[in-house]
Amino acid sequence: EGAPVSTLMEHYMLDTMLDLAGFGEGEGQMTTGSSNGNMIAMLAARNQAIETGKEQGLFGHSPLLAFVSADAHYSLDKAANILGLGTHNLVKVPVDEHGRMQPQALERLLQQHSQNGKIPFFVCATLGTTVRGAYDSLPPLVELREKYGFWLHGDGAWGGAALLDDELKKHFLPGIEQLDSFTWDFHKMAGTNLMCNVLLFNHHRGTLRCVCSAGEHSYLFREEDKNAELDMGTASLQCGRRVDSLKWFLDWKFFGKKGLAERIRHYLALSEYAEQVVHGIPELEMTVPRESFNVCFHFRTPENIPANEFNLELRNRLFKQGISLVGIAYIEEKLTLRLLITHPDYSRADVDSFFSNLVAAGKELMHEHLQG
Amino acid sequence: EGAPVSTLMEHYMLDTMLDLAGFGEGEGQMTTGSSNGNMIAMLAARNQAIETGKEQGLFGHSPLLAFVSADAHYSLDKAANILGLGTHNLVKVPVDEHGRMQPQALERLLQQHSQNGKIPFFVCATLGTTVRGAYDSLPPLVELREKYGFWLHGDGAWGGAALLDDELKKHFLPGIEQLDSFTWDFHKMAGTNLMCNVLLFNHHRGTLRCVCSAGEHSYLFREEDKNAELDMGTASLQCGRRVDSLKWFLDWKFFGKKGLAERIRHYLALSEYAEQVVHGIPELEMTVPRESFNVCFHFRTPENIPANEFNLELRNRLFKQGISLVGIAYIEEKLTLRLLITHPDYSRADVDSFFSNLVAAGKELMHEHLQG
Repeated sequence: EGAPVSTLMEHYMLDTMLDLAGFGEGEGQMTTGSSNGNMIAMLAARNQAIETGKEQGLFGHSPLLAFVSADAHYSLDKAANILGLGTHNLVKVPVDEHGRMQPQALERLLQQHSQNGKIPFFVCATLGTTVRGAYDSLPPLVELREKYGFWLHGDGAWGGAALLDDELKKHFLPGIEQLDSFTWDFHKMAGTNLMCNVLLFNHHRGTLRCVCSAGEHSYLFREEDKNAELDMGTASLQCGRRVDSLKWFLDWKFFGKKGLAERIRHYLALSEYAEQVVHGIPELEMTVPRESFNVCFHFRTPENIPANEFNLELRNRLFKQGISLVGIAYIEEKLTLRLLITHPDYSRADVDSFFSNLVAAGKELMHEHLQG
Repeated sequence: EGAPVSTLMEHYMLDTMLDLAGFGEGEGQMTTGSSNGNMIAMLAARNQAIETGKEQGLFGHSPLLAFVSADAHYSLDKAANILGLGTHNLVKVPVDEHGRMQPQALERLLQQHSQNGKIPFFVCATLGTTVRGAYDSLPPLVELREKYGFWLHGDGAWGGAALLDDELKKHFLPGIEQLDSFTWDFHKMAGTNLMCNVLLFNHHRGTLRCVCSAGEHSYLFREEDKNAELDMGTASLQCGRRVDSLKWFLDWKFFGKKGLAERIRHYLALSEYAEQVVHGIPELEMTVPRESFNVCFHFRTPENIPANEFNLELRNRLFKQGISLVGIAYIEEKLTLRLLITHPDYSRADVDSFFSNLVAAGKELMHEHLQG
């Protein structure tokens, strides 16, 4: 009611996103970020698993179990805490050498826990893990869902942007149309200003309202309203909201699906190039092979210099000297430098100068270490 | 790490707000709105009440009970759903003729439910109810807390702005420094752009981090970091965030506490004036006496014209003719028009013209009704 035009823009964009994902008879919503999107999906699954959950709470019910890969984002842990499920009831499934959830391991864990009287209700596939950029494979998870009947959610916060390009979608997201829900951030690779997250539900029209709505709110929402169907307020966990749909709609109209798809392909091409550059520099080494958009590498160190400390020092020096702020993370306790390219004007020349600056600083630091 | 200056601004503003509220050794955070602030406060109370709640969830535990006034905001119902407590475990305490929670009724309900094996853990005082603008009286609730040991939260989403003026604070918020937590929206009366909500904890340093943090997030937050204490990421439920502290800090520096206090006093004076105007117009009537900033009135109707339908029609006509968009709400099933003044340039002349337009449209509509 307060912003009718932007509400129509939001509907238009959400419908467009549902089409892209291949979700039939679905619905969507803009949230405050994928952390929030993941939580709402888990909430919907929880209230579906425990029919009385919304009114009576979880007290006295058999424990529910959620499953994610060991490399999933920490927002899933937060969601398990917030929703009253408990972080110990979020089971971490081992990943394979590519950083993808192992379906066989998932099935073993599903069987094992079901025997203990716990109820598996939710599996989250990470579509583009935070550190390595790995995409969990969906078809085997869809198969397991047939057997175990859980809610299958896709966290595409980072990697979901592959949806914008038909080829990348086929390559990275096969089976996405089978998910029960999917969330991704338009403010990451797609470049819209913060915040711009979208959460999509498949074959679940009305679920959002049912899950999120509660309490007496007739000062805002009234059934006599002819446009109640269009009003998105009762389906949101927020009360007041920024008009985030405007910038999203304008970006979409200005760049178009094609323009944004080119952007994503450009990022992928640059990360392929960056991997080649790393291979060509003797001082550097890929920490793990590149899975998608993430380039995880480190500076090689001789045996007498601890690699993690050295790379951390190198990274801090680059930051303090105002040269660059590189992401770092740990892969199996090994510190890795993590290059993610998300600026549309970034070019091969920028990749070159990033690495040559880094190598120069690294050599200098190595020199100091060997002398000191 | 990504925005060090705005992090310092946020710390500065939160410390200032803690001082204003009289919270010693407290901590604060910016959230996505009071709906979110209320939920996080309830989450903190829940995890304090059930020590194993964060890890094990609520399964198998005796039901917890939260209490709010019957006029509290619907976000509390949502929070009870999200947190796994169940909306039926949110008890609505009757209000007195001013729209304030009745402490005697609260005590009766506390006793009654404790006997049934349920555990009261959270009471939320509404400080400025959405519809009537009533402030629950804090001292009797503080007394009950001594006896029953619950977490006492204050929802000042709307009315919390009274904090900015020492006299209004004394009048509307006596005892606020005794609360366990308090949330209010700087984007409402105080006028900062959406979103700008603050959640404050009293005597609870470290609680936010303990409550909200979960999972492996070393790609962002690392203990070797000397400034880990300053980093607010692990205490937030969001991962990426907008730099909301900048606009807040600048508003504070530009207008100052004094300037903002004047603004709030100006709103109060205008609503006093609006009430007088209503009293002076025979066609209008106050639905209930004014409690604070909210002016709840309606157009009088003869017995043969249903008051609610008429006022709704009047309100829609004003909207469609582009004259004004007036809030409406129900007080004991009686539809009321609800004037809230939150623009700093609004003057007595604006109040006059608002009412004269409304009365003109109302007379016209009445004429049509009596003829038709």
